[in-house]
Amino acid sequence: MLKVAICGGSGYTGGELLRILSSHSKVKVTAVTSERSAGKKVTDLFPSLYTYARMEFEPLKPEKLLKKADLFFLALPHAASQEAVDFFYQNGKKVIDLSADYRLHDPKVYSEWYSTNHNFTNTLKKAVYGLPELHRGKVKKSSLVANPGCYPTSAILGLYPVLTKGLIKSGSIIIDSKSGTSGAGRKGSVNFSYCEVNEGFKAYGIAGHRHTPEIEQEISLIAKKKIKVNFTPHLLPVNRGILSTIYVDLIKRSDTKTMIELYKKIYGKEAFVKVLDENFFPNIKNVAGTNFCEIGLKVDTRTNKLIIVSAIDNLIKGASGQAVQNMNIIMGFKESEGLDSLAVHP
Amino acid sequence: MLKVAICGGSGYTGGELLRILSSHSKVKVTAVTSERSAGKKVTDLFPSLYTYARMEFEPLKPEKLLKKADLFFLALPHAASQEAVDFFYQNGKKVIDLSADYRLHDPKVYSEWYSTNHNFTNTLKKAVYGLPELHRGKVKKSSLVANPGCYPTSAILGLYPVLTKGLIKSGSIIIDSKSGTSGAGRKGSVNFSYCEVNEGFKAYGIAGHRHTPEIEQEISLIAKKKIKVNFTPHLLPVNRGILSTIYVDLIKRSDTKTMIELYKKIYGKEAFVKVLDENFFPNIKNVAGTNFCEIGLKVDTRTNKLIIVSAIDNLIKGASGQAVQNMNIIMGFKESEGLDSLAVHP
Amino acid sequence: MLKVAICGGSGYTGGELLRILSSHSKVKVTAVTSERSAGKKVTDLFPSLYTYARMEFEPLKPEKLLKKADLFFLALPHAASQEAVDFFYQNGKKVIDLSADYRLHDPKVYSEWYSTNHNFTNTLKKAVYGLPELHRGKVKKSSLVANPGCYPTSAILGLYPVLTKGLIKSGSIIIDSKSGTSGAGRKGSVNFSYCEVNEGFKAYGIAGHRHTPEIEQEISLIAKKKIKVNFTPHLLPVNRGILSTIYVDLIKRSDTKTMIELYKKIYGKEAFVKVLDENFFPNIKNVAGTNFCEIGLKVDTRTNKLIIVSAIDNLIKGASGQAVQNMNIIMGFKESEGLDSLAVHP
Amino acid sequence: MLKVAICGGSGYTGGELLRILSSHSKVKVTAVTSERSAGKKVTDLFPSLYTYARMEFEPLKPEKLLKKADLFFLALPHAASQEAVDFFYQNGKKVIDLSADYRLHDPKVYSEWYSTNHNFTNTLKKAVYGLPELHRGKVKKSSLVANPGCYPTSAILGLYPVLTKGLIKSGSIIIDSKSGTSGAGRKGSVNFSYCEVNEGFKAYGIAGHRHTPEIEQEISLIAKKKIKVNFTPHLLPVNRGILSTIYVDLIKRSDTKTMIELYKKIYGKEAFVKVLDENFFPNIKNVAGTNFCEIGLKVDTRTNKLIIVSAIDNLIKGASGQAVQNMNIIMGFKESEGLDSLAVHP
Repeated sequence: MLKVAICGGSGYTGGELLRILSSHSKVKVTAVTSERSAGKKVTDLFPSLYTYARMEFEPLKPEKLLKKADLFFLALPHAASQEAVDFFYQNGKKVIDLSADYRLHDPKVYSEWYSTNHNFTNTLKKAVYGLPELHRGKVKKSSLVANPGCYPTSAILGLYPVLTKGLIKSGSIIIDSKSGTSGAGRKGSVNFSYCEVNEGFKAYGIAGHRHTPEIEQEISLIAKKKIKVNFTPHLLPVNRGILSTIYVDLIKRSDTKTMIELYKKIYGKEAFVKVLDENFFPNIKNVAGTNFCEIGLKVDTRTNKLIIVSAIDNLIKGASGQAVQNMNIIMGFKESEGLDSLAVHP
Repeated sequence: MLKVAICGGSGYTGGELLRILSSHSKVKVTAVTSERSAGKKVTDLFPSLYTYARMEFEPLKPEKLLKKADLFFLALPHAASQEAVDFFYQNGKKVIDLSADYRLHDPKVYSEWYSTNHNFTNTLKKAVYGLPELHRGKVKKSSLVANPGCYPTSAILGLYPVLTKGLIKSGSIIIDSKSGTSGAGRKGSVNFSYCEVNEGFKAYGIAGHRHTPEIEQEISLIAKKKIKVNFTPHLLPVNRGILSTIYVDLIKRSDTKTMIELYKKIYGKEAFVKVLDENFFPNIKNVAGTNFCEIGLKVDTRTNKLIIVSAIDNLIKGASGQAVQNMNIIMGFKESEGLDSLAVHP
Repeated sequence: MLKVAICGGSGYTGGELLRILSSHSKVKVTAVTSERSAGKKVTDLFPSLYTYARMEFEPLKPEKLLKKADLFFLALPHAASQEAVDFFYQNGKKVIDLSADYRLHDPKVYSEWYSTNHNFTNTLKKAVYGLPELHRGKVKKSSLVANPGCYPTSAILGLYPVLTKGLIKSGSIIIDSKSGTSGAGRKGSVNFSYCEVNEGFKAYGIAGHRHTPEIEQEISLIAKKKIKVNFTPHLLPVNRGILSTIYVDLIKRSDTKTMIELYKKIYGKEAFVKVLDENFFPNIKNVAGTNFCEIGLKVDTRTNKLIIVSAIDNLIKGASGQAVQNMNIIMGFKESEGLDSLAVHP
Repeated sequence: MLKVAICGGSGYTGGELLRILSSHSKVKVTAVTSERSAGKKVTDLFPSLYTYARMEFEPLKPEKLLKKADLFFLALPHAASQEAVDFFYQNGKKVIDLSADYRLHDPKVYSEWYSTNHNFTNTLKKAVYGLPELHRGKVKKSSLVANPGCYPTSAILGLYPVLTKGLIKSGSIIIDSKSGTSGAGRKGSVNFSYCEVNEGFKAYGIAGHRHTPEIEQEISLIAKKKIKVNFTPHLLPVNRGILSTIYVDLIKRSDTKTMIELYKKIYGKEAFVKVLDENFFPNIKNVAGTNFCEIGLKVDTRTNKLIIVSAIDNLIKGASGQAVQNMNIIMGFKESEGLDSLAVHP
């Protein structure tokens, strides 16, 4: 059994790591940290995680943790993750970082968007952007995975096939995304209190959200040229799920059927990407609680735009599930181990 | 125009006072206070209150406020209200206090349930419990109204007719109440964050909620004997509304029709109490956004229990609307002035 | 008092007309029709409309209704409205039609998108598209108003200032709209049942929604050239509200401040359009239950796109409220009469 | 692999059977029926059940089904189940019936509450009421299990310990239950449409719900005397979960600690019943998506009442999960096989 530690385990992504790993046949969680909740039982914060009834949160003491585990999931806040990642990595451990700290290859871009410097640029160079559908080979050989952000996962998976095939005008990409409220994390804040969110809907971070450079980095790599996008996130009054509606200009005339065939061909062997048949479109309900990404496609023949709709669970394929998927790849486990739950409906 | 000040105007009850008074034909709001938001515009906290676009929150300085208004609504936290109420009252102002500080006649009971002493017991004696349907005459002559709590409003209005007629066994009363989340106030707290409340439902404060002695005080006065109740509140994943399901043992056999007739007779002239016809029962949707209380009745002939279901909007009939109703009574305005909005459906 | 009849009063727009008119000082509702609910009390279908406790639905018999009212609101299904509108109009009555039957000036476009012929093309020529902010003068002189659709209202109000000033590339318009579920009407359908909608989110009618030609007609008129748009509606798990996120390419470089100034200038005297200050954006919560439209603006200087966010209540500014606004204009009443409620928060 | 057929597979309980069985290591679903959806793919109705992409619904032809499976789950409407159950049972198959048709031992009580006769009273005598925590031994030996109703499961599990120990007054039991909307089934109905349920809350079926005699049958058997209860269901605006708040009079003075000890002792070995520690109470969120039942307890020493709060997922422990649990018992599989998922939070 692989010994695994979770650093920063009291938030929603930490909780999801715990839950997913509890049914993983090859893994044992040996430690889970939380500064604020150190000494509390896991079930005090997550009453439904009955299987962890005897486990307690401990403070994050890297030296002490080193001996406890061979693979580390870090679900710490941005910036706070930099040093811990470096420490575990330099000490020969496998590290999967769920923060944004090791996602952007260029430390200048990082400091521009995250308002803090990157102090471990050598380690940064070792990090692989852990979107398995794009970088599986690199992940397999890596000991340090930067787990992708939730919005970028939905956007990049939606855009990859048409970009890699060079079918769209690169200046035309608009990504209109809508996320469930768990994306804001588990925190006390009037803005994310029940009454303020319920029966509401709004855009936020327009033309300034931090996931923009992450999306641009990856799609520029796919397209092999610099691409800028318009990315607008919105806050949905649901717990989970991201749905991105993506608008792109096709270079040549095409139709829906052709596009679906292309996507099915490219994603045909992927366990977690479901390209839907014509006239079917994703609903976040269908992927909530799962590691799946659904993609629906429509060519608007009146304007020759392709509309791509992709949906994921922001906490699973957009965070903890993808992290476990990356672990499975690194460790040579079956890629879907622990991750094959279907959505509970309704 | 009556000049009115609102002390503690940044929470949900404060916002509702502002909103209701904005369409009141005889009142002008001249000041609104908030310690934390002093200097901010009302519309910074309540973007939808367009009519207050030029008004700012100010700190609560009683001396300064004295000159600004003739009637004071206090929507301050419990204990914080004691002194301010006393000050405005002793300076000859009309005061309507939305906190619990002046509701319990017996200061010992107050300190037992609220874990703090009452330091203004002489002023306390002057306070009238402002449930107009029971105490309209006293409210009319009063300058100090203790505005009832939300749960007590729903429970007492439900129980009043059978209690005043002596039809039920006083030891048998069970009040199972369910409240929308706005009852917890406008605050940043993980427990009341969207994700924790949404798709959830739970009981809380079982056998220990502070509204228990308030209910017991009033129904004991009605029944003219000491009554203890079982009161269990629950947290509903909706913004607004309280629905109380009340179980009582009838002393004699009766039936639903008879009970409805009694309730209709007693509440027939009340503008804000709607006794429903047989086989109709309240839904919080029907009263949300309004000052109405709906009551539905059923006698279970198998067990000879009467089941009373009452519904109100916790922030309106359970707080700010009832406060305005009390103001209307004190000032001799039409009792429903500013309060006749119907529920927006759906 | 103006005598008013509502044809098709059992759905959500009919209910909203009843509710709004109940507080209108110059109007008396003399008849309300429903085929399916004829003979039932209004309060059987709308328990919260206490003020209509004595009114019953009647079947739609045009001859009989003629004598009962001077102005007719028609909230009938599409196609079903054609003949009734013609009848009341030809008999000299004022008519405000909430269906789509008289919105599209070109009957060919109508039959193409609505799969039925228009049989009253002469009457169609008399109809004015009742978006007061664009066509107030025409509405004032008209006896037949085609009340705009909900999505078009949000889209056109958002686009009007930049289009009328010729600031954007007309081929670039993308309208990504999200609507509350009441937009689907009051009906029994598995797809709109609580469990299927709750915790879900999806796009629908991609590149084929019937509101597309309505938007294109109006914005082409503003721009004085043929414009095609990409319009994608989504289904939000809330009761009310439409938020449209609109992406347009600016012809010249500009900035957010300049755009806000332009919008404020153009809409400055409008009672129901609120252009928000910089860094503020609409939330459907702020307009739900009201006739207001909120507009927020942001120029993305990286891509020189303007992002326009507009929000309305789909049943009020998007239907019944706008219908009453049109009535007020036609009749010479104050334009905001009956329509000045603020949103209930939370 | 055990071959299993699901009769009536297009509703929510059918969908849950499919989902749960898809991860069951000892079972293969060989047929699923639906009259209305015969010929459709399972994924047309349940897009998230990817693993059934190649399976279609077929009409319910008992003769034909006989050969296909060894164990039959019937998720048919009440009354419709009678004959099919009898047929499969008489033909030597194992049958687990999720309808109410075989739950009530007395056919007179059945016809009184369900307004239809029972035509298979001999088969009825063979049926075991499949609440494993009470009747595991009988279930084990049985070929015909009447799977309990959702409300009864929550109520009976809550009451069993104090009833079997004779600690409460049998005339005093009040069960105030609140259910998520999936309890109403998957159907098109205005009353259960999103807009009507969302932001609403109401009681229904007061003193007349069909689960009353089922609860009374079982608790009378436990207490070894006839017991009548007051049972009031309410409709919660959530998808899943039942929370029952149960009030009983204790015969002797007791306290919370003692009661918790008793419940822990009685349920200590049960895989699916979680008795919570003092001051912890159930939340439907903690059990939604799982087969667990949470129970919290509080003695109100002021009134000597015990308040029992129990929570389950109405579709799992209250239906399909319990059905699989019963199958596991009958077949000698591990009782929790396929059923050990934890709740997804949030």
